[in-house]
Amino acid sequence: MASAVTPPRGMRDFLPGEKAKREHALGVIRRSYSAHGFDEIETPVMEDIQRLHSGLGGDNEKLSFSVLKRGIDQAQLESAASTDDAQTLADLGLRFDLTVPLARFYATHRAELPGVFRSIQIAPVWRAERPQKGRYRQFMQCDIDIIGDASSLAEIELISATLATLDALGLQGCTVRINDRRLLIGMLELFGFPADQHEFVLIVIDKIDKIGTAGVVAELRTKTPQLAEATDALEAFFDSPNVGTAQAFGRDSIARALPDGIDPDAIAQLSSIGDALDAGRIRFDPFLVRGMGYYTGTIFEIAHPDFAFSLGGGGRYDGMIGRFLGTDVPAVGFSIGFERIVDLVDLPDEQAPDSVVVLHDAAASAVLLQSLKTQLIASGSRVRLERKAKNAKLQLERLSAAGFARVASVQPGVQGAADLTFRPLGH
Amino acid sequence: MASAVTPPRGMRDFLPGEKAKREHALGVIRRSYSAHGFDEIETPVMEDIQRLHSGLGGDNEKLSFSVLKRGIDQAQLESAASTDDAQTLADLGLRFDLTVPLARFYATHRAELPGVFRSIQIAPVWRAERPQKGRYRQFMQCDIDIIGDASSLAEIELISATLATLDALGLQGCTVRINDRRLLIGMLELFGFPADQHEFVLIVIDKIDKIGTAGVVAELRTKTPQLAEATDALEAFFDSPNVGTAQAFGRDSIARALPDGIDPDAIAQLSSIGDALDAGRIRFDPFLVRGMGYYTGTIFEIAHPDFAFSLGGGGRYDGMIGRFLGTDVPAVGFSIGFERIVDLVDLPDEQAPDSVVVLHDAAASAVLLQSLKTQLIASGSRVRLERKAKNAKLQLERLSAAGFARVASVQPGVQGAADLTFRPLGH
Repeated sequence: MASAVTPPRGMRDFLPGEKAKREHALGVIRRSYSAHGFDEIETPVMEDIQRLHSGLGGDNEKLSFSVLKRGIDQAQLESAASTDDAQTLADLGLRFDLTVPLARFYATHRAELPGVFRSIQIAPVWRAERPQKGRYRQFMQCDIDIIGDASSLAEIELISATLATLDALGLQGCTVRINDRRLLIGMLELFGFPADQHEFVLIVIDKIDKIGTAGVVAELRTKTPQLAEATDALEAFFDSPNVGTAQAFGRDSIARALPDGIDPDAIAQLSSIGDALDAGRIRFDPFLVRGMGYYTGTIFEIAHPDFAFSLGGGGRYDGMIGRFLGTDVPAVGFSIGFERIVDLVDLPDEQAPDSVVVLHDAAASAVLLQSLKTQLIASGSRVRLERKAKNAKLQLERLSAAGFARVASVQPGVQGAADLTFRPLGH
Repeated sequence: MASAVTPPRGMRDFLPGEKAKREHALGVIRRSYSAHGFDEIETPVMEDIQRLHSGLGGDNEKLSFSVLKRGIDQAQLESAASTDDAQTLADLGLRFDLTVPLARFYATHRAELPGVFRSIQIAPVWRAERPQKGRYRQFMQCDIDIIGDASSLAEIELISATLATLDALGLQGCTVRINDRRLLIGMLELFGFPADQHEFVLIVIDKIDKIGTAGVVAELRTKTPQLAEATDALEAFFDSPNVGTAQAFGRDSIARALPDGIDPDAIAQLSSIGDALDAGRIRFDPFLVRGMGYYTGTIFEIAHPDFAFSLGGGGRYDGMIGRFLGTDVPAVGFSIGFERIVDLVDLPDEQAPDSVVVLHDAAASAVLLQSLKTQLIASGSRVRLERKAKNAKLQLERLSAAGFARVASVQPGVQGAADLTFRPLGH
C-alpha cells in the first residue's frame, strides 16, 4: 500500500500556499457578490440520479459520477446484470454543475425564499473528464443566479456584479460578450435553415473562434449539402460589411450588425441591458452560441484581452425551474471559471496578522514555549513554534516562503514574549 | 418529476441565513487555528476505495459511499455478479473522515512539507448513517493535526488551539477530558484481563457514561463470565475512594486516581501536558476510551457543562501514517464536532457592511436602479434592489429578518443615491 499514495486520477491536493490563495480568492468573490445583494446557499454534493439524468445537463450528464446504493446484495447485482443496466445499482450521483441542484433547491424551498431570489453558490462539482492540462475531475464553480425576474434588470445585476468581482480579483480589463438565443434563431430562420437543423447549425457556428467564418461555411457545405441555399445566405451575411461590428451596445448598432428582418423587439430588449452598463465593457456578438441547450434568451461570456479562452459565462434559462416545480419561473445565471482565474490572478497579500516564528531547541521547556505562544497570539500575531533545523538557512528560507514575517530564537534567559528578539524574514 | 424535490435522504440544503451562520463560524475556526500556527490544506472528496477500506476507519468504513466505475459495461456487471462482490464495480469512495485522507496526503507530499506539519482541514465527509435527529449523511468536520512531533508539545498545541477556538466561538466553559491508551491497557493488564480481550473490555468501559460502573461490571459478568477474577479487580477499583477524582492534572494526582502499579513514566508523560495548560480546563479521566482503534497514546474529548454530549475529540495515532508511507511518523489530531457546535453558538453579528434595500416599482428605470446600486456599493454598502411587494409590512419584516439594516424607496425625482431617504429596518 505504501506505493499508491496519489490522489485519484484528475483530482488534486492543495498544499498550504495554494489553499491559502484559493481561500483568499473565494473570499474576494463571496464578499463582492454579497455586496451586490446576492445570498449564499449550499446544497448537498449528491442529488437523486434520476434528477441528474433528466436531460438538463447536456453532455455533462454523461460525465457524472454515480454513487453505488448502500448494501447492494447478490440478488440486486444479478438483477442489474440481467437488465443490462448498471444505473440500477446507483441511486445518487455527484453533481456535475450547480444549475441543476439550484433548480431543485428552488423547487424545494420556494415558499421560504424572496420573490426574486439572488443566489451565490461557491462549491465543487465533479465530471469524469479525460484528464488533461487544465481539466480536472473535481473543480470549483462560482455561480450567481437570479430566479423570478423576467426583466433585463436581472441581466444587468448579474453582469455588473460579475465585472466588479473580476475587478476585485485584479483581472481588470475583462469584457462581456452578449447575444440572445432568440436573435440567433431569428437569423437562422431568415437564412432559411429548417427548425430541425437549428441545433446542428448552432454547434457548427459555435466553432467560429477556432475555424473562422470560412470554416463554418465549409463544414455546413460538407455535412448538410441539402441546406446549400441557407448556407449561401449565411455566407453572404458573413461577407457583409457590418457583420459583428456593433461598436456601441445600442439598438441601432445591434440592428446594423444583424441581417435585415430580425424582430426589433428582441433587439430592443437586448440593447436595454447595455443602457445600464459601462458601454466599454460589453460587446454584442451575433455569433456567440454557448453550448448548453437549456438557454432560452440572453447568453454571455467573459473575455479578457490577454487570454484566448473564456473566463466564464452564463445566460437565461427560463424553462428549467419548471421541470422541477411544474410552473415556469424565469431564471438567469452567470458562472465564473474559478480554476482558470485562480491561476491568473496575483492576489495582493491579505491584511494578514503579523506572523512570527519562535525557534527553539529540543531542550526548551514546553511550558515556556506554550506561554510564549499564548502571549504572542494574544498580542495579535500568527505564531508558529518550530524546532531549529540542522540547516538553518534552508529553514529560514522555507519559513519566509510560507509567508512568515519575523523570527526569534528562545535564548537562555527568555522568560516571556517581551524577552524575544525578532528579526525580519525577507521575502 | 415535480414532486420529488427534496435533497437526498439524510442530507441538507442550507438557506441563506443558515449558510451565513455556518460560513461565519467556519471563518472564526479558520482564523483561530491559523493564529495558532496551523496551515489549511485540502484533499479531493474521493479516495481510492482500497485505501478507504484498509481497516483504519473502524466502523465508519462500513458506512462509506462507493462511486461506480465510469463506463461499467455488461461484462463487468456479470463478472461482479458472479464474484458476489459489488465492490469490484467501484474504484473510488467518498471519504468518511479527514484522518485517512490526511495520512494519504502526508505520504504523497512529505518532501514538500515542514518536518513538523500542522494541518487544518475544514471539509465535508459522508457516512451512510441511518438518518436520525442530529445525524447527517453529509456533515462538516474541522480537524487540526500535528504530524512529525512525538513530544507532548504537540498535544499542548492542539488542546490550547482547540480551547481558544471554542472560546472564540462563544462556547466558554469547555474543558478537555484526557486519558492515555497506554494507561488504559496498563490498568487492564493489572486487573488480569488477557490481551485478546482488551478491545472487547474497552468497548464495554466506553459505555460508562451511559450505564455507570455497575452497568459495566454487570455486562462483563454476563458476556465474559470466564473473566470473573479480572472483573472483580475492576469492580474493586471502581469502588475505591480515589477513582476518577484527579482534581488537579499533576503527576501525583493522576497516580492516585489509578490503581497501584501503573508505569510511572506513562503517568509523567501524560501529566507533562497539563503543566503547560490552564489547569482549570483539563481533567484526567481514567475511563475515557474513544472508539477508534488507531489511537496509540493520548486521547481527549471536549466536554461542556451545559451539554451531555461531547463537542469533539482526538488523540495520538502514531501508527497510521506508516500504513501509507512505509515508515512510522508520529501524529496527533483533534476534531471539532462542527454540526453540534454550530447549532449551539449564538454568533455575534460580523462587522458586516451597512446593508440597505432600495425598493422600487415596476416602472422604475433599470438605468437609474443600476446607477443607485453602483453608487451605494461604492460607498461600502451591501445593496439589494427589490420591487415593492403588495404586502409592504411582510416585505419589510422579511428584509429585516434577512439582516438588512436600512430601506429607501425610489420616489419621483430621485436621480442619485444622495436623493434616497433611508429609514432603519428594526430587527
